[in-house]
Amino acid sequence: MSQQGAGLRVVPALAVGIDVGGTSTKAVVVDGDGEVLASSTVPTPGGVPGLLEAVTGRRDWARAVVGRERPDAQLRGTGVVVPGIVDEEAGVGVYSANLGWRDVPFARLLRDRLEEPVAFGHDVRAGALAETRWGAHDEMSNVAFVALGTGIALGLVHGGLIVHGGGRAGEIGQVLVPEPGTGGHAPLERVASASAIARRYTERSGLDVEGSLDVVARAHRDTVATEVLDEAWDALGGVLAGVVALLGDVTIVVGGGLAEAGTLALDGITAAVEAHLDAGAGFDVRVVPARLGPLAGALGAALLGMERADDDAAAPA
Amino acid sequence: MSQQGAGLRVVPALAVGIDVGGTSTKAVVVDGDGEVLASSTVPTPGGVPGLLEAVTGRRDWARAVVGRERPDAQLRGTGVVVPGIVDEEAGVGVYSANLGWRDVPFARLLRDRLEEPVAFGHDVRAGALAETRWGAHDEMSNVAFVALGTGIALGLVHGGLIVHGGGRAGEIGQVLVPEPGTGGHAPLERVASASAIARRYTERSGLDVEGSLDVVARAHRDTVATEVLDEAWDALGGVLAGVVALLGDVTIVVGGGLAEAGTLALDGITAAVEAHLDAGAGFDVRVVPARLGPLAGALGAALLGMERADDDAAAPA
Repeated sequence: MSQQGAGLRVVPALAVGIDVGGTSTKAVVVDGDGEVLASSTVPTPGGVPGLLEAVTGRRDWARAVVGRERPDAQLRGTGVVVPGIVDEEAGVGVYSANLGWRDVPFARLLRDRLEEPVAFGHDVRAGALAETRWGAHDEMSNVAFVALGTGIALGLVHGGLIVHGGGRAGEIGQVLVPEPGTGGHAPLERVASASAIARRYTERSGLDVEGSLDVVARAHRDTVATEVLDEAWDALGGVLAGVVALLGDVTIVVGGGLAEAGTLALDGITAAVEAHLDAGAGFDVRVVPARLGPLAGALGAALLGMERADDDAAAPA
Repeated sequence: MSQQGAGLRVVPALAVGIDVGGTSTKAVVVDGDGEVLASSTVPTPGGVPGLLEAVTGRRDWARAVVGRERPDAQLRGTGVVVPGIVDEEAGVGVYSANLGWRDVPFARLLRDRLEEPVAFGHDVRAGALAETRWGAHDEMSNVAFVALGTGIALGLVHGGLIVHGGGRAGEIGQVLVPEPGTGGHAPLERVASASAIARRYTERSGLDVEGSLDVVARAHRDTVATEVLDEAWDALGGVLAGVVALLGDVTIVVGGGLAEAGTLALDGITAAVEAHLDAGAGFDVRVVPARLGPLAGALGAALLGMERADDDAAAPA
């Protein structure tokens, strides 16, 4: 409406993206090029009502930021993303172990609560979209964004579009892989997630660490650290080799906490993917670090909000 | 042209599909519903010139069939598919070990030779498209068509469209898997292709067999046969579990010679895929037999030919 009221003057459009995580909720205000005007992080309250309250709070924060810092601009498009199993099409949060919900009709609840159109999505898939559009890697229309955190999830963008798979696309953390040292099998995320790396190091060395980055930091002087990391890269490489072979043309973007481990993790993962593919077959293995860091999910949410606003504007009244 | 000449009368449209294989070249004449009017198989001659000759021969055969049996119809659309690494976009056969070529500009050669527009594609990817459209499985917009033959290739159709991957999509046969009995690794197709199953059975039992179907036939009374097959399904299941987890919503269609092994192979593959996924994660594993049999590639070629003719008709003059 304000767009029409502005006549021929072009009003810069901003969007707000809100990423509800297991422990914290991140919000960003961004412009159409993905430039972050402001960001904010608050703890995620327990329960769905508390969560809706937190989302409303972040949206109000965003409005205040825009009113104060960019009164010339319009806040156009809001997106909210959540973790777990998310059916974007139905607008439902199907399941989240961390946040403890099942079958929550978020799209409807958010629209009722915020009293405006809201785009709703999945944190990692939205992050994949943001890395594709704004991550500044060249020519990435096919992206497998792997988030290595408490668990492992993958957001697949193919031909520039998010692959939803009925809410289940990218759950590679649940593929069973040989479990090093036991002769059995375990879900990939029990071997190769950031949490698993820290836990496995402590189990084997008896030493406490402050997360997976601490294990990475020990790798040059501690054979247990090297061993745990090599096992993690090998397990991850086996599954990602299948992704490369299936799609033929895909860039693997490594995100999550371990992305900050730098070249050691990237080189390790790249070598492991290559080691799981026949060298003579000429696969093009591309593994790059995520560029958007911990804000990828919130930026993806903002992108979804923009797309939603564009769709609404284009739809016949 | 004949379409315009026919005025308002609707001329039934037929298409010819030609599948150039390692040993034989198959051709079909089909209508828009995938009904096969006629099919023909000839040996594949050596060398590219001989192959072009064979394709021309099949096209002429198709014209004669239509003239004789369906003089009311129009032959509209010709498609040719070949095996190996195929860059459909560039129209190039990049590499075929079986047929011994590298970087052959097939699209141009075929157009010059046949003196008409020709669609050019990859045998397994085209077969996947045919199984999606005409295979009579319900609601399959996402299909992973796995052809188990001399090697293993996968044709991925996603959202109803073939995934090309720059000519390299679906090369899962080149993923390295643990090689049973050696402690080493081998390409998946050296463990789980139809050829590999027959070869591995003979190596281990000392008995000659007539292909993989013979091994399947022995499975109920021969522990070596059971062992070799279980190892094949397990290796295949590990890679396909990754496909299911990545895409979330996909139907695995098993084709190639082993598709004729019936429920034993299908049940074995289904169980193996499920065994490689965390049971608690609720994946929906769907494995179905291919319906189009050995003609899938030729039918897919005909589909490509029809699409090409439609595109040409829709393009501005």
